[in-house]
Amino acid sequence: MGRNAAVEIKIAYIGGGSRGWARSVMTDLALCPQFKGEMALYDIEPIAAELNVGVGQAIFQHREARTKFRVRACKTSAEALKGADFVFLSITPGPMRMFANDIDIPARYGILQPVADTTGPGGISRALRTIPTYVAYAREIMKICPHAWVINYTNPMTLCVSALYAAEPDIKAFGCCHEVFGTQHKLARLVEQYLKVPRPPRQEIQADVAGVNHFTFVPAASWNGHDLYPLIARHIQTQGLWDDQTEFALESRARGRWFTSKGLIAYDFFRRFGVLGAAGDRHLAEFVPWYLTSEENLNRYGVILTPSLYRLSMWDARERDIAAYRQGKRAKPKIETLKRSGEEGINQLLALAGLASLDTNVNLPNQGQMPDLPLGAVVETNAQFRKDSVRPVVSKPLPAGVSELVRRVIATQRLTLEAGLNKDKDLAFQAILSDPLCRIPVDRAWAMFNEMLQANKAMLPGWGL
Amino acid sequence: MGRNAAVEIKIAYIGGGSRGWARSVMTDLALCPQFKGEMALYDIEPIAAELNVGVGQAIFQHREARTKFRVRACKTSAEALKGADFVFLSITPGPMRMFANDIDIPARYGILQPVADTTGPGGISRALRTIPTYVAYAREIMKICPHAWVINYTNPMTLCVSALYAAEPDIKAFGCCHEVFGTQHKLARLVEQYLKVPRPPRQEIQADVAGVNHFTFVPAASWNGHDLYPLIARHIQTQGLWDDQTEFALESRARGRWFTSKGLIAYDFFRRFGVLGAAGDRHLAEFVPWYLTSEENLNRYGVILTPSLYRLSMWDARERDIAAYRQGKRAKPKIETLKRSGEEGINQLLALAGLASLDTNVNLPNQGQMPDLPLGAVVETNAQFRKDSVRPVVSKPLPAGVSELVRRVIATQRLTLEAGLNKDKDLAFQAILSDPLCRIPVDRAWAMFNEMLQANKAMLPGWGL
Amino acid sequence: MGRNAAVEIKIAYIGGGSRGWARSVMTDLALCPQFKGEMALYDIEPIAAELNVGVGQAIFQHREARTKFRVRACKTSAEALKGADFVFLSITPGPMRMFANDIDIPARYGILQPVADTTGPGGISRALRTIPTYVAYAREIMKICPHAWVINYTNPMTLCVSALYAAEPDIKAFGCCHEVFGTQHKLARLVEQYLKVPRPPRQEIQADVAGVNHFTFVPAASWNGHDLYPLIARHIQTQGLWDDQTEFALESRARGRWFTSKGLIAYDFFRRFGVLGAAGDRHLAEFVPWYLTSEENLNRYGVILTPSLYRLSMWDARERDIAAYRQGKRAKPKIETLKRSGEEGINQLLALAGLASLDTNVNLPNQGQMPDLPLGAVVETNAQFRKDSVRPVVSKPLPAGVSELVRRVIATQRLTLEAGLNKDKDLAFQAILSDPLCRIPVDRAWAMFNEMLQANKAMLPGWGL
Amino acid sequence: MGRNAAVEIKIAYIGGGSRGWARSVMTDLALCPQFKGEMALYDIEPIAAELNVGVGQAIFQHREARTKFRVRACKTSAEALKGADFVFLSITPGPMRMFANDIDIPARYGILQPVADTTGPGGISRALRTIPTYVAYAREIMKICPHAWVINYTNPMTLCVSALYAAEPDIKAFGCCHEVFGTQHKLARLVEQYLKVPRPPRQEIQADVAGVNHFTFVPAASWNGHDLYPLIARHIQTQGLWDDQTEFALESRARGRWFTSKGLIAYDFFRRFGVLGAAGDRHLAEFVPWYLTSEENLNRYGVILTPSLYRLSMWDARERDIAAYRQGKRAKPKIETLKRSGEEGINQLLALAGLASLDTNVNLPNQGQMPDLPLGAVVETNAQFRKDSVRPVVSKPLPAGVSELVRRVIATQRLTLEAGLNKDKDLAFQAILSDPLCRIPVDRAWAMFNEMLQANKAMLPGWGL
Repeated sequence: MGRNAAVEIKIAYIGGGSRGWARSVMTDLALCPQFKGEMALYDIEPIAAELNVGVGQAIFQHREARTKFRVRACKTSAEALKGADFVFLSITPGPMRMFANDIDIPARYGILQPVADTTGPGGISRALRTIPTYVAYAREIMKICPHAWVINYTNPMTLCVSALYAAEPDIKAFGCCHEVFGTQHKLARLVEQYLKVPRPPRQEIQADVAGVNHFTFVPAASWNGHDLYPLIARHIQTQGLWDDQTEFALESRARGRWFTSKGLIAYDFFRRFGVLGAAGDRHLAEFVPWYLTSEENLNRYGVILTPSLYRLSMWDARERDIAAYRQGKRAKPKIETLKRSGEEGINQLLALAGLASLDTNVNLPNQGQMPDLPLGAVVETNAQFRKDSVRPVVSKPLPAGVSELVRRVIATQRLTLEAGLNKDKDLAFQAILSDPLCRIPVDRAWAMFNEMLQANKAMLPGWGL
Repeated sequence: MGRNAAVEIKIAYIGGGSRGWARSVMTDLALCPQFKGEMALYDIEPIAAELNVGVGQAIFQHREARTKFRVRACKTSAEALKGADFVFLSITPGPMRMFANDIDIPARYGILQPVADTTGPGGISRALRTIPTYVAYAREIMKICPHAWVINYTNPMTLCVSALYAAEPDIKAFGCCHEVFGTQHKLARLVEQYLKVPRPPRQEIQADVAGVNHFTFVPAASWNGHDLYPLIARHIQTQGLWDDQTEFALESRARGRWFTSKGLIAYDFFRRFGVLGAAGDRHLAEFVPWYLTSEENLNRYGVILTPSLYRLSMWDARERDIAAYRQGKRAKPKIETLKRSGEEGINQLLALAGLASLDTNVNLPNQGQMPDLPLGAVVETNAQFRKDSVRPVVSKPLPAGVSELVRRVIATQRLTLEAGLNKDKDLAFQAILSDPLCRIPVDRAWAMFNEMLQANKAMLPGWGL
Repeated sequence: MGRNAAVEIKIAYIGGGSRGWARSVMTDLALCPQFKGEMALYDIEPIAAELNVGVGQAIFQHREARTKFRVRACKTSAEALKGADFVFLSITPGPMRMFANDIDIPARYGILQPVADTTGPGGISRALRTIPTYVAYAREIMKICPHAWVINYTNPMTLCVSALYAAEPDIKAFGCCHEVFGTQHKLARLVEQYLKVPRPPRQEIQADVAGVNHFTFVPAASWNGHDLYPLIARHIQTQGLWDDQTEFALESRARGRWFTSKGLIAYDFFRRFGVLGAAGDRHLAEFVPWYLTSEENLNRYGVILTPSLYRLSMWDARERDIAAYRQGKRAKPKIETLKRSGEEGINQLLALAGLASLDTNVNLPNQGQMPDLPLGAVVETNAQFRKDSVRPVVSKPLPAGVSELVRRVIATQRLTLEAGLNKDKDLAFQAILSDPLCRIPVDRAWAMFNEMLQANKAMLPGWGL
Repeated sequence: MGRNAAVEIKIAYIGGGSRGWARSVMTDLALCPQFKGEMALYDIEPIAAELNVGVGQAIFQHREARTKFRVRACKTSAEALKGADFVFLSITPGPMRMFANDIDIPARYGILQPVADTTGPGGISRALRTIPTYVAYAREIMKICPHAWVINYTNPMTLCVSALYAAEPDIKAFGCCHEVFGTQHKLARLVEQYLKVPRPPRQEIQADVAGVNHFTFVPAASWNGHDLYPLIARHIQTQGLWDDQTEFALESRARGRWFTSKGLIAYDFFRRFGVLGAAGDRHLAEFVPWYLTSEENLNRYGVILTPSLYRLSMWDARERDIAAYRQGKRAKPKIETLKRSGEEGINQLLALAGLASLDTNVNLPNQGQMPDLPLGAVVETNAQFRKDSVRPVVSKPLPAGVSELVRRVIATQRLTLEAGLNKDKDLAFQAILSDPLCRIPVDRAWAMFNEMLQANKAMLPGWGL
């Protein structure tokens, strides 16, 4: 690699049917003159990849593009992986109907989940579908492009990355999630409010990150020489902050603002355990048993359940899109201007290529960065991205109470992983029983679990269902 | 110590107001010609000790007694401990009214506990009362009789022993519990039923023991060359075994048979997790969230709640007894015949004195006997009692699913211990939140917790209540 | 299995060319009426097995024999293993010439070893030869008789057992060594001397055992209620005990008493580190750098080097024996009387069959019995033999200074194991460099190492030598 | 703290009699406009502090100075510490005569050390002198300025930092050493030579750091997108590189170039173990037994022993300086120009104050950054300096062979620390015996050890010497 010329790289992009992520990656790439090369797209639904090729061409031929990448759809994942320097994994584990089941079946048994893609019975179900696919990709990657860096965007993040390493311990994979950015924005607002300065950009908020994906915490934060913890302590004393937010929640629901919240649950962790939650309230609530005891209780914190119908409607739009394309009716994508996504994917590539340095948070097997938690478990902490290396930074220890909550999540994830790898129904049920959301009679849980297995049957070959 | 003459020992017996235990110990001692010496009794209620002196004299002067011990009541614990070779701890942590609160307050918030002396909000509350007392005894023992072996009978067993070691890491203490004997009896019945032989005595059942007190398991068992696990596997297939036991439960309740059960929950652990529970169902049910979801659900397994009124009535009897003694109305205890209790306390003393060998189960800090669980946590496994040493035996590993359940209990116990040692209200509440039985909204839990603290106020000096 | 009839078992005996061990095992078996069955012998030198068949027949047909076993030689190990309940491994790793090299080559570079079969450059060399054989046996056993218990007598004990588990983690193997018995005898003599009682049998000496094979320690010992540590402390003050023993050593050498010693090095560990060594001085001296600095220094402790010529002469006798047999000249073995060997092999079999209980010391992967040392490393401690189970007893912790010495040995063994499994020359040299006896310039060590590899070439296929 | 104005800080500087370090720190400070404030100097030899005040005044009044600090000498360390934000520790543990003994006594027993201030018998001896002093400073700091950051420059670095944390686990201390800079310079030269580019500044060399102080390694290194490991692999093949360097060594000795070397030992670690040594050869050679077998063997690598006479002559110069000052004869220090030292002390202060970010290597208790090594042991790795925090970066794992060598050093350091804290002669001797350089008969080692204790007697109160 020279110092000035653009470096030639090949990127394999697996999945991406949702297109939001693929578009972001390609736009960021188009605005990065240090790279040039090829982008090979693969999706189990070939039209989805072809649609993305169209988007990619529009982006790289855009007048504002500062570099060129060849974008093409591949018939097999092997073809896409051949010669890849970087592999993005961004798949949907099964049809949206299955995602809807992940929400609806537990709900019938009294277990509510606002997201259901990470943890709880819904997350476990999704993981069981995903694990075999990820094992297969891990093996293929190590056969075809063993030196490539693998960047995962799929949920359940932790179990996807865990499955890659379980299948191939030498794989160079990590998981990316922007959930923590929201906490940086929140802290930037506190800086503005309490320090009476213009709101700083999120990147200026120095935050320790510790936990597992979507159940992350910020045990220390500062801005420009100011410790932000005293500001949080002050903020949670705000008059009215802890008032019942049911009205707000009901209005959100009426308007279909499914993802909104006031961040009260993140603050509640600060109040009860002394450490700020660093994921959205919809996620945080799913990892402990005391917010989702009823929909009403959740609403009191200003958070609502996302109905499965909404999930299905999104999928329908996608299906219509593909149908239109098939009939030649879909117009060429039009892109007004190329705008950076705010994601860090491309910066990670630059750093791994040795062209920049980057410190960010990332999901990686625990090599010591969270010494209180089991080595090997995939955790989310800060890390240094450098030439062909990602080195985690040892986090400030979480308070014992929260550390234990995280550890329990990891234990449930381990049982889920083992169950998925070995197609072991007993272990899978033990995972369900050990999940903090499972507070129903054991025989009811058994009935629910079997119903979920049946709903996933098509994606659980070898389970003897 | 010579080989034949009785060895002179001094025993300090602290507490024992309940008298059942003290009587057992003294009877077993009277039937053990290898020992002679002195037994010094202390209770914070002096009359309780005096009553036990009377019992002791009746025992040692009994014609069937094979040895003599001087029995006397001491005014201070220090007096009792002076020169002691063995210290028994068998206290009641606070008046029975507080025990009743441990049951009743959580029940008002929807948390049910059949026993409430070990785990759950009730067990945590009891532990918070007990810890300072145990810290004080540990210090006094290490000052006055540092070489004495300390044998604890008080509940919560695990936290009592933990508190001793937290205060004085060099103390020679362990905890004894006969709960596992019941499982040996149960297995002896299976031997009789399936191997068509006369029922063997429980001591012939070779059982691995692993877990924490009252949440113990038997991961392997044999009798006379026969592996007993296949028998259990066969037994749980018995027609009708899993039928709804509500009727049985209601009858037990009607007749005040508070402690009866069919052992179905112990078998349910075998069915779900592949390992036999080794404590009574009333205890086992308290360590996981899926049996105590309602009284009805518990009854379905043939187990009932012990009402606090029953506990209080027991206490009243004791009070009446003391009152009678004060008024000189209490008759001298009459003892027909001396009968071995079946407990192992005296055998332990013999082994520690180097006069016999003994293998039994015991509660001790984890030194490696359960390598999956944190070192230092008090666990229950088999151990070898030899001359001045108790060496734990490494247990057959518990299945991963159950090992995690035990580990969670240990984590809650650690938070409780830290809270108790440091009088830390936040940590104590985190212990409550992390207990598997706590499945209520966090603010309700907070209200419950504060009510419990107030109820314990008289025994929580320094907590700023 | 019934309670009274002899239980039918099949034993596979692999190796045993040395015949001492095989004869002991068969004699003990003949005196054990609880067993009957078959003994299948296999040796890579078929005549060696045939010779042992002759010995076996003489034993089991002896008038004093209390049971019968069919004894037969097998053409393949697979044939011997078929249906085996117990497998004895007792092989010689390569011709005696190679053993002689293990002693002689290091000696030319200034590294002296009295035994050279366990540790040091000689032990490492022997291990490299042995590991592939043991890997192959492990695989064959798990294919043919996976439920059999495997009892290893071959040295290097630790690495043989380690190799079995490295190849097949589910194998039921352990290693037996009688070295600790000598320490029990030594302690029995102290009992006689200082307590003025008749010398007790070694089995009455209760001794904790901790360490790795041949580098074991007794951190606590008692007899009949007497702590023996004060006796040892008194004994090492004996006038003249620490005098220069060169004269004794030279006389031992002159008379060819190669294995004699005064046990001073075992006591020196007590003096320097506070814990009694529990193997012979010839072994203990090989694990630290400060006794074998020169032959003179070793002699000062009354220990001598066993010359390789002596080892070769033993081998020659064996070769002559075989030659005689081939020529039909060898007389039938005559056995005057059957005498128990004092070894514990048969007692172990009885306990594993559920017919007895046995507590003894044994070599097993660390499952927690030595919590200061790496889990999985093969260590020697006490253990309980019960029906189909061997459960290690957690040892009294070794003092930190000695624990570290043992840990270093384990680290060198791990490097050796990895080197042997992967045929990795770099790792093997790192093992040599990390051995406490290797105190020579690194390039000299490299030359020595290459010379040793060449000498082992015939038994190191795949090493590219 | 505002964004632009200089931040007011107070620095306590303890020791610094050597003045090199103090002068560097003050010069760097004078060139750092972000800070202003006070510098309080304390030395057990008051004149040494006064001399440094003179130096400081000359620096801060220099026309090139960009900020002002008040510099003053304090009569007590308490006075210096009062109100301190940062504490520098840079003391000499005892008179130079004792340092000379650390070299000379072991040499008489055949143990050679080129440096003798870190490890080996000399380093252990120095550590035993230092530990009580550091315990006292730790306690005083936590009493007077518990929130101050403590930066240690004294050797033995690891044991100084360890002693601080042993005495006060909550102290905010770390150790700084520039030894790794030399490796960055070396790698920069390889970049120049093999990549044919101008030699880059050392800061551009991205190097992972792992090990303990002076026994550090660089398991990965890159520059501007180039992996440097292939260059090293190529370099060690250079014709003549491994030739005998005795001639070079003898010339160095003749010219008194005590600290020169060719870095061959650092490369030899690469050759034997696959990882580059990252400290000077004089240090690296002291941690393993195979270079210092004789002075001749050391010389072959181009390294020489630094004679104690040279150390003493340095001290004499210092004494003359002080004497001159006492007699008023010493001229005011003249400083031509202020030049940055190249050290990173001031950058660390800036980052800890939240005014900059810094990634560098540092000595800290292991919190997970080296997961193969014991938690709590002080290790040297990269770390992120941020607002009031130093977070270690998890290093690339060292190869197993080297990791074990480091672990042994840590074990010896732990024994030394325990010995020093408890004034325990037995443990101290066990530390000596466990040091890799101790390859002499145990009774000789005992004699040497006692001689060393006597030589340190004045600084070992409470040892009963």
